[in-house]
Amino acid sequence: LQFFHQIYLFTVSFHSGFCYVYHRRYSTPLLPANFAGTPPDMIEELQFTYRPIGILRSPYARRIDAPHQSTVVEGTETGAFATATLELADWLDEKVLQDLAGFDRLWLIFAFHMSEGWKSTVKPPRGGPKRGVLATRSPHRPNSIGLSAVELVKIEGRTLHLRGVDLLDGTPVLDIKPYVPYADAFPESKAGWIDELDAKLGRYFAPGPRKPR
Amino acid sequence: LQFFHQIYLFTVSFHSGFCYVYHRRYSTPLLPANFAGTPPDMIEELQFTYRPIGILRSPYARRIDAPHQSTVVEGTETGAFATATLELADWLDEKVLQDLAGFDRLWLIFAFHMSEGWKSTVKPPRGGPKRGVLATRSPHRPNSIGLSAVELVKIEGRTLHLRGVDLLDGTPVLDIKPYVPYADAFPESKAGWIDELDAKLGRYFAPGPRKPR
Repeated sequence: LQFFHQIYLFTVSFHSGFCYVYHRRYSTPLLPANFAGTPPDMIEELQFTYRPIGILRSPYARRIDAPHQSTVVEGTETGAFATATLELADWLDEKVLQDLAGFDRLWLIFAFHMSEGWKSTVKPPRGGPKRGVLATRSPHRPNSIGLSAVELVKIEGRTLHLRGVDLLDGTPVLDIKPYVPYADAFPESKAGWIDELDAKLGRYFAPGPRKPR
Repeated sequence: LQFFHQIYLFTVSFHSGFCYVYHRRYSTPLLPANFAGTPPDMIEELQFTYRPIGILRSPYARRIDAPHQSTVVEGTETGAFATATLELADWLDEKVLQDLAGFDRLWLIFAFHMSEGWKSTVKPPRGGPKRGVLATRSPHRPNSIGLSAVELVKIEGRTLHLRGVDLLDGTPVLDIKPYVPYADAFPESKAGWIDELDAKLGRYFAPGPRKPR
C-alpha cells in the first residue's frame, strides 16, 4: 500500500440497463508537501477529485437561457428574481450548514458540467476580440470550475433558497463559502479589458440575462 | 465503451525507488444534463477531477505561518508585502494568460492540499463557539477547495507575480479568474457570525498573519 501514491476503490453498479463504474481515491503523502524537487511531469499528473455537496435546481434549462453573471439576474424580462434551491447531498450532516443563515451572500464553487472542451482563447459574449481564457469567466476553461456570489434568501432544513443565480439546472455544487466583505469585496479593483470595453460601449455590466424558462 | 459512465486510463511510473500510478478520467454523457430522475445514490457518486494549472510558490512553509485571509497579509510584522509566484503548468499554452495583465486582482481557486479530513463543525481561529464548516473558510471542508482574491503585480512570460497571498508554498492552483467588481464586490454584504464576533471584539478583520519565513 505504501508504494502507491494513489489507491483506487472501484464500485460497479447497474441502472436503467447501463453499467456504471465509480471510484473513490485515497492518497498517501509520498510527494513532499510543497512539491519542491518533484519533476514537472509528476506535478502535471497530480489530480484532485471532488464530490458534489448538492445539485442546484434553477429555472435555466439550457446555456442560452442563463445570464452571464449572477448579479445581473435582477434584470430579467419580467423583472422577477430568479430563484434556485440547493439541497445538501445525503453524505453530509445538516450541521455543516449551521451559522450560515446570517450571511447575505454565499460563494458557490461548482462544476460547469455542460462544458465540453476548451481553447486557450475565447470570444467573450460582451464583444471584442478573443481573450486568454483565464482572463475571462468562460465556462470552457482548463478546469471547468465556476464561481458565483449568490444571495441567500433562507435555509429550511437541508435546503438553501437562493436568489441571483446564473447557474444551469442540475449544476453540481462542490463548495459553499460565506461571503465576507473584508476578504472578498474590492469595488475599486480595475478589471482590464472588461473596463475598457464597457467604457467604450457605455455599459457597466455584463450582457443582460434571458428570460428564465 | 459506451456502457461505462467513466473510462480510466492508468499510467504507472517509477521514480526515486517508488512506484506511482496515475490515471486520467474520461466521462461519457450518460446521465441527463440536470440529473433529474437520477437516483440520489448515483448523484452522490458523481466525481469531478481537476489537474493543477500551476503550483504556487509562497513564503509560507507551514500552516501556522500563513495568515487566515489573503487581504490581511499587508499586516506582516515587517510591514512588507508577502509576494508569491505562480508558473503556468506545462500542459497549458501561454495564450491562456493573454489580457490578464490589466486586472488589479485575481481569484485563485486551489486545493488545500495539506488538509487531512474534516468535521461538520469547526472552531474558528477568531474565537467563539464551533460553527458549521460551510459557514467558515476553514481549509478542512467536505471538498477541500480554497478561494482567495490576490493582487496581480505583473506577468512575465508564464509566471504570475502575486501579492497579498495567504497560501502555503506548494499549493496546487486549479483555476484563475479575473476579479470583476460588478460580479464579485459587495462591500455591504452582511457576514452573520463573523460580523457579530468582530463587533463584540472591536475588530473588523481576521486574525493577523504570522511573519513569513
